[in-house]
Parts: sequence; structure tokens; C-alpha cells
Amino acid sequence: MEVDAATIMNTLGRQARAAAKAMRMANTRSKDEALVLAAAVMRREMNEILAANALDMKAADENGLDDAMKDRLMLNGDRIEAMADGLEQIAALPDPVGAIDGLRYRPSGIQVGHMRVPLGVIGIIYESRPNVTADAAGLCLKSGNAVILRGGSEAIHSNRAIAACLRRALVDKGLSQDAVQLVDSTDRALVGALLKSEQYVDVIIPRGGKSLIERVSAESRVPVIKHLDGICHVYIDAAANSEMALKIAVNAKTHRYGVCNAMETLLIHCDVAVEVVQVIVQAMLDKGVEVRGCDVTRQRCNGMDVKLASEEDWATEYLAPVLSVRIVDSLDAAVDHIATYSSDHTETIVTEDYEAGSRFLREVDSSSVMWNASTRFADGFEYGLGAEIGISTDRLHVRGPVGLEGLTTQKWIVYGHGEVRG
Amino acid sequence: MEVDAATIMNTLGRQARAAAKAMRMANTRSKDEALVLAAAVMRREMNEILAANALDMKAADENGLDDAMKDRLMLNGDRIEAMADGLEQIAALPDPVGAIDGLRYRPSGIQVGHMRVPLGVIGIIYESRPNVTADAAGLCLKSGNAVILRGGSEAIHSNRAIAACLRRALVDKGLSQDAVQLVDSTDRALVGALLKSEQYVDVIIPRGGKSLIERVSAESRVPVIKHLDGICHVYIDAAANSEMALKIAVNAKTHRYGVCNAMETLLIHCDVAVEVVQVIVQAMLDKGVEVRGCDVTRQRCNGMDVKLASEEDWATEYLAPVLSVRIVDSLDAAVDHIATYSSDHTETIVTEDYEAGSRFLREVDSSSVMWNASTRFADGFEYGLGAEIGISTDRLHVRGPVGLEGLTTQKWIVYGHGEVRG
Repeated sequence: MEVDAATIMNTLGRQARAAAKAMRMANTRSKDEALVLAAAVMRREMNEILAANALDMKAADENGLDDAMKDRLMLNGDRIEAMADGLEQIAALPDPVGAIDGLRYRPSGIQVGHMRVPLGVIGIIYESRPNVTADAAGLCLKSGNAVILRGGSEAIHSNRAIAACLRRALVDKGLSQDAVQLVDSTDRALVGALLKSEQYVDVIIPRGGKSLIERVSAESRVPVIKHLDGICHVYIDAAANSEMALKIAVNAKTHRYGVCNAMETLLIHCDVAVEVVQVIVQAMLDKGVEVRGCDVTRQRCNGMDVKLASEEDWATEYLAPVLSVRIVDSLDAAVDHIATYSSDHTETIVTEDYEAGSRFLREVDSSSVMWNASTRFADGFEYGLGAEIGISTDRLHVRGPVGLEGLTTQKWIVYGHGEVRG
Repeated sequence: MEVDAATIMNTLGRQARAAAKAMRMANTRSKDEALVLAAAVMRREMNEILAANALDMKAADENGLDDAMKDRLMLNGDRIEAMADGLEQIAALPDPVGAIDGLRYRPSGIQVGHMRVPLGVIGIIYESRPNVTADAAGLCLKSGNAVILRGGSEAIHSNRAIAACLRRALVDKGLSQDAVQLVDSTDRALVGALLKSEQYVDVIIPRGGKSLIERVSAESRVPVIKHLDGICHVYIDAAANSEMALKIAVNAKTHRYGVCNAMETLLIHCDVAVEVVQVIVQAMLDKGVEVRGCDVTRQRCNGMDVKLASEEDWATEYLAPVLSVRIVDSLDAAVDHIATYSSDHTETIVTEDYEAGSRFLREVDSSSVMWNASTRFADGFEYGLGAEIGISTDRLHVRGPVGLEGLTTQKWIVYGHGEVRG
């Protein structure tokens, strides 16, 4: 079986390499027209996509998938329309490929700068949401890459139908359909083979739960762009505006619970008035959030329903209406707590103090660091990337929300006039 | 033994992490003063460094190292002075850390941008040249990183003496001496342990021969910044200025033979006049370069000493006075040859034709692509980086000559005024 998986993946990989070479040189208009056409095909073929999805939903019932999984898997007219919209939005974004910057003359006479170029072949490994098929392929195409998609086996019929729309549009616009390839099998050995395809694949982007990301990180010979956890912190400084602190803390925790940029731990400077702490904790309780505090927090919230936080709480991404709260003695203690427990995703300080805010921005080493704003803004759309293929908490290549630019790299270009060295 | 290596490396790793945290926040003046002081200490301790080097040279004699290796290993007053100079030059470069760019307002009211930050802990694995100890440590310190140095066992005494100068300067300027740590053992298992230290090391940069780089790439669990080969091409287009073509080809091949940015293969468009081909080939022969040509090249150089190139020649980095020459039918054929055989290091086109030059710059996918300039310019100093820690032919993070910026990453920063989402 392992041999078969490797053979299948080699074929996909060779085809992807050839397609990547062509996509790299495809002009902006062809790429944009193919994306707009793919959206149109998707709308036209809505019934076929829904029929394919019905097969997946039927299998999901038979296999006893839970309601949350079935909701992620389920397509309807609105969701297909949203995918088509997404492709049109990607088409409308500026093309990152070929952009030249930093050109400057050197004493030798040569002019040196950078040209932005596609990464090459991108592997996407994802779970049940079929919309990733369209979103990820759209971003990869726009940025001039070829993509190998490996979706969850529970979504195979839906993914096949969606990928077919994209491939049809590519061919129609004179581009290679192999720029979008779906691993059309549910054999799990194929994931392993994809992770070993360093010859054909330039980067793997896993999208899904923590166990998927951990497996991909541990096994992959191909570089991975990923984030594992989103243990995000809000720190309310001694010099915080208390109304703003309340508003940001409530938004960061309760706007949506299951997202990676939601707050999981609230840090509060010990000089913040007891009444302010109580108002914030009460607001959380009123929203139905379970609050787990340190000893000091519980003292200050005497009579309120605050459970005792354990060491484990500081290191937990709840993704649920649960919040840990810790009172700290200083900005240094807040920065230390974050350095120890943060997943390097997003942290924010609430303060009116210039020194505290500047220090927090500099000293906290996460992929997004904010001052007087909700952690919920850590998002490709909110940052102006237009779209997002994921969030990286890695240090190399790209950090934070990853848009089209993160799917490209740069090469040096030199304009000369016959200069030689010597 | 393996257990011991892991234990030693964990200690070094923990110390490096702690030092990296401090270095990340060190101000520009402390870092620059430490670098300048390290240069002064190195000059003051010149006799001690020379004595240490004498031990290495004695062992080299006993172990029968060849003259080329001994030359790389040998230190004298000039070479120590050059290392000290290098540290002062690094001190004089602008500090990349903390630079903020791209700040822009978003419709939500938040202001979003990037802040440049150090990578963290950098592992350098290198061979016999002791100057790498000073150069690499200097670049890592300036960019706010901690470094773990693993030099060749044949240079252990020299490396120890040089690292001691750097560590003394760090302490004197109130910085952590553990920002520069030398793996002070010749046990080869330590290289393996370093390559598995993903918990403590953010990136490995190998400097040395191809077999070292291959081993590091194959074994490392830590991301690697590297290049394997430098199979660089010069393509003389039909519309080349023939004098310029001669000058660039000769410089690219003969300025220095053993360097990665030297030309290994010369591609010539079939419409280039036979006399021009002959003049170029004769110039190479006059310089003592062995020329290996395709059939057409040999026909056009009838009567000249041109050997027949084999398939293997196109894929060989000679690093020697040997050149392969191929006549191609078109720009497309040149681009295809490069795509097939290039090591993605550096390629140049010689042409006065706008269309040909623009297409070459866009279509060739190497880390440096040039127009009318010698491949020898692919170098951190020539590009204006001030110094270079290596050259990357990888696609992720950094490509081409790597200077201070390549040793850093970016985090997103957000300035808000109480904005929340929703």
C-alpha cells in the first residue's frame, strides 16, 4: 500500500511541478478570469455540488458523525454562493507576482532589488469543511502556485465536485488544470506520501484540529506553515481606561468562542481597582462564561462564582465559554506569563501609558501584538490582506495571518550595463 | 554517548534561549559597543589566538590534513585583524531589530503594521575556517539573536579562543555571554543532537562543503537555511553586445574559480556570430580553462581545444578552471536548460533586447537573476547587505545572499483606540 501511495503522489507531484512552472508565468488577466469563471461555474453547477454533498452527508449519518462535524460538512445554496463570492474577491485583489521593490544602485553600477515570485507547489491538508477546497485553491492560483488538495475523506464527493469547477475554469482560460489537483482517494497513506514529497511540494499548510497539525508537523519533510494553538492574552495595565478594558475583554472572549484569536487568559495589573475587576468578571459571568481565577482574583471577586484556576488552565486553549484570570504584580510579570504560556498567536495590552504600551509591543514575542484593540482583529481580512489561507505562529517565512504574499517568495534581480567584479 | 550529547545540547539550548530573550531586548548601543569591544579584545589577545591556532595547526600536521585545508585553518596577524575589522563593520550597520514598516489604518480604526524582530537562537555548523566563528557570531548578535556555534573539530582551539573574546566583550557590556556559545567538544554526536534541538534552536545555517550540507538537510528537525550547489549560468543572447558578453563571461568564470557564484555553464544563442563564440572560447583557453562543449559548439570552434561535454557536465559544479558550453536555439531553450540543470543560485543574460532581458528576469526562477552583469555580483557585500552569513537557494524565508535581515522575522503590531470586532 505504501508503495502505491508513493506512486500516486509522485504522479500528482510531477503534474503539479509542470503546472506550477506554467502558473508562475501566467499573466494576471488569465488568472483573474479563471477565478471569476470558476465562481460562475460553481453557481451553474450548484445542483451537482449539492448532490455530491448529499452523498457525503448520507455517509456522515451512516458513520455516526456528530452534529458539529456534520454542520462543517454541510453545503447549501448560501454556502456555495459564499465560496463563489470568495473566488471573485480573490480575483479582485492585486496580483503579488512580479512586483519589484527596493531597486537601488550600488557603487559598482549595478541596480539590485527584489522581485516577488510564487512559492511553487503548495500542499493543503484539511478536514471536513469543503469550502477550504475553493478558498485555498483560489488563493494558490492567484499567487501563481499549483496546489495539491488533500481534504477529509468524509468530504470527498463535495471536494471532487468543487475542484472540478476550478479545473474546468482553468482549462477554459488556457491554464493548466493540474494547477488544482485533488488527492482523489481516502487512503490515509497518501497523507504520509504527501508529507514526504519534498521533491515536488514546496510547502504544506495544514488546516484543522490540533491533532492533524501535530501529525503533519512531526512527519513532514516538506516545510510547514501552521499554528497549533491560540492561547491569546489580554493584559489590563494599571493605567488602562477601565471602560475600554471592559469592552475589549468582553469582545476578545465572547464575540466568538471557538476561534483561535479569542482570549483564553485575562491578566490584570494588581493596581487596577477592585471594582473594575469585579465589573469585568461579572460581565463574563453574565454572558455565561465560566471564570477560573488565581487566588488574588478570587479574593478580589469575593462572593462571585470564580473557580480556582490550576496550572493547567494557563496552558489551555478552551475554545469555549471558559476564561482564566490572573492578577499580576507588574508589566514584567505579565510579559513573563505570556512568554511562558502563550502560543505566540495574539496578545493585547490595554493601557493609556506610553511606556507600558511601547514596552509591551516590543517585548511580547507573538505573531500579533496589539495595544488597545481586541485580539479578535488578528485576521487576514481585518489586517487588509483581502483573504487568509491560515495563521502562522512559526518564526520563519511568514508570521500571523497569511494572505497572498505569504504564498510567494522573493528573488533578487540585478540590472547591469556590463559590470564585472574585480 | 547519544544520551550525553542530548544532555549537553539541552544545557546549551536552555542557556541560549535565556540569552536570546535578553538579546532580543538589548538596545542598539549595547550590541554595537559589545561588537567593537570584541574586536579590540581580539586584537589585544592576538598572541593567545595565534597560540591556540598553533595547536590546531600542529594537530593538522599530525593528522595529515592537505594544504588547502591547512590554509583554511591557518590564522596570522592579518587574518585576525580582518576578523576584528569585520566585527567593527557589523557594528556600523543599521540595527534591523524594532524597525516598523507598512503601518496603515484599516476601516475598523486600528493601525496595522510589521515590526522586525530577531529569529531567536541560531545554530551554525561549519568546517575548518575559524573566521566563521567571529563573522557568524557578529551577525547573530547584531540582529539580536543568540548563537550556538559548532565548528570543525580541527579548529577547536582556535574557535575556543575567538569565542572567548566575544563572550568577554558581551559580559563587559552587560549582555549575556551565553548569546555566543561554542559546542566545546569534538564529539560528532553533538551535531546530531543540535539538529534535533527544535525546542531550543530556531534555524540552522550550515557553512561548508556539499556533504556537510546534505547531512544537515537530511537529518535536521530544525529549519535549515542553505544552498547546496552553485551551478551558475551566463546566457549570451542573439542581441548581446559581443564585447560585453566576452567581458562578463570571462569575469564570471575566471575571476575566482572556487566560489559558488562563478559560472559553470555558458549558454550561447545559435545566432551569435561564430567569431564571437571563438573569441570567448579562446579567451577561456588562454586563461587555462578547460572547455567542454556540445556538438555545435565544437563545430563552431573547429580546430580549437574543446572537449565533448557529457550530460553530467551540465549538472556539475566544477569549482575549478573547467567550463561547459552549449549553443541553444532560443531564449526558451536557454530558460529550459537553466530550469533543468541550475542549482537556483545565480544566472545572467547578456542582451541589448528589452523583451529578452525582461523575459529572462521574470522566467528564470533562481535566487538571483541578472541582466548584463557578472554572476560574481551575487554576494551580500555587493548587494549592499553589509555582510553575509550565507546564501540561500531555498524558497522559504530568505533567498540569495543572507544578511542581518535574513536573521530576523516580523511580527504584526496593532495600534488601537479601544476598537472591538463585530
